[in-house]
Amino acid sequence: LRLLTLARDLQRRKARERQHLFVAEGIRAVEELLRSSIPVRGALVAPILEHTPRGLALRETLGSRGIEILAVADAELASAADTESPQGIVAIAQIPQRTLHDVALGPRSRLLVLDAIQDPGNAGTLLRTAAALGVEATLALPGTVDLWNAKVVRSAMGALFQRPAISCTWEALDQFLGSTGFPLWGADAAGEPLSAVTTPDRLALVVGNEGSGLTPQASARLGRRVAIPLASDIESLNVAVAAGILLYQLRP
Amino acid sequence: LRLLTLARDLQRRKARERQHLFVAEGIRAVEELLRSSIPVRGALVAPILEHTPRGLALRETLGSRGIEILAVADAELASAADTESPQGIVAIAQIPQRTLHDVALGPRSRLLVLDAIQDPGNAGTLLRTAAALGVEATLALPGTVDLWNAKVVRSAMGALFQRPAISCTWEALDQFLGSTGFPLWGADAAGEPLSAVTTPDRLALVVGNEGSGLTPQASARLGRRVAIPLASDIESLNVAVAAGILLYQLRP
Repeated sequence: LRLLTLARDLQRRKARERQHLFVAEGIRAVEELLRSSIPVRGALVAPILEHTPRGLALRETLGSRGIEILAVADAELASAADTESPQGIVAIAQIPQRTLHDVALGPRSRLLVLDAIQDPGNAGTLLRTAAALGVEATLALPGTVDLWNAKVVRSAMGALFQRPAISCTWEALDQFLGSTGFPLWGADAAGEPLSAVTTPDRLALVVGNEGSGLTPQASARLGRRVAIPLASDIESLNVAVAAGILLYQLRP
Repeated sequence: LRLLTLARDLQRRKARERQHLFVAEGIRAVEELLRSSIPVRGALVAPILEHTPRGLALRETLGSRGIEILAVADAELASAADTESPQGIVAIAQIPQRTLHDVALGPRSRLLVLDAIQDPGNAGTLLRTAAALGVEATLALPGTVDLWNAKVVRSAMGALFQRPAISCTWEALDQFLGSTGFPLWGADAAGEPLSAVTTPDRLALVVGNEGSGLTPQASARLGRRVAIPLASDIESLNVAVAAGILLYQLRP
């Protein structure tokens, strides 16, 4: 029963921060988790998991790795999950305790900085986009949703398990960027057109909240503002779409 | 009361198709609707709308345009809305009855083709992305979610009111592309790398379902397949992010 209580408790950000644990829900997310180097603390499985060959195979893999498994009723599992149908499985795993200094940076590398990104779906898609386009690490600045929230984990589609995702303060980021020589550029509708900009070797790109744009803390630190030219009657792009275009276009 | 019954009925695709009407929910969507040329049939307003200056102004605009308004209780409004908090307003408006032949196409133009895109949030973000990046029209092929579904309307953030969004069959598309000289290219992980491709003057770009990729119907028609090179351990991009990168990179 301990695992069930723990999974329910981990729906709260404070519990995740205290325990350094998070919950991954559904077959695909748990498969991705097992492919990563993140230690898995245990899994809750419900009868419905064994209704598909893929679910059966996943249960076997968990067993063969010696991961603690608690069998629960479908309704109990749902009580520990954020989704309505977690496909009969949630796993509890360790949040990697990384800091900025653990990020391996080559001479040509990219960082994505999330400035008060509140929507969990957007945050997850940003993590997925960054990982796919070769960004070394994604940094969550104050005001950003907890990256280990179940909705973020789901939208990130495994990217969160494969690349460093680090919460940090603006002061810590200042120090890090200063010592590593990364310029900080921001996505901003009032900036220079993207097509006119020369790609630097190292770059930290900041994206802000869709509704309110970049925070004053971000704005004050930008070396450059870059804009994606848009049709005049359309206000903005989704933030993950904008980040995708910028990261592709500014790839090293 | 007629408007309330109508709005509830329009939650079903069949009713929208029969009546050629759809529902826009919330202050921002109704503001965007009023900025467009789409005729508004009526609006339901609940007391909560008048709790903000922006809501009050919107109610006044509706009145000054001579649009039929029905005042309902907050709970009644919720029963006609897809969102939990429609901010005290839903509007009923006409679905533009456009066909492919109504799309104005210049010598350098773009079409986005949705091939069995089922997720309404993705479909809406695709419409928004296409409009922002200068695409003339978005075409929904069989298997794609109804573009006038409330979730699509919400995610499209007004783009659906500003640009043609047309449902059509593959046969109708064949005829149209043949007669207008548009090549059909598809987004496909196994395609040529995007950076090696020369941008054509006219282009119809097809994007498919995230899980299952392009349908056989789409694949059989492609002149070219284009890929966004991704990190080897990340399976795919979100379909709207991928479309954004391709449409920006292949802009006329």
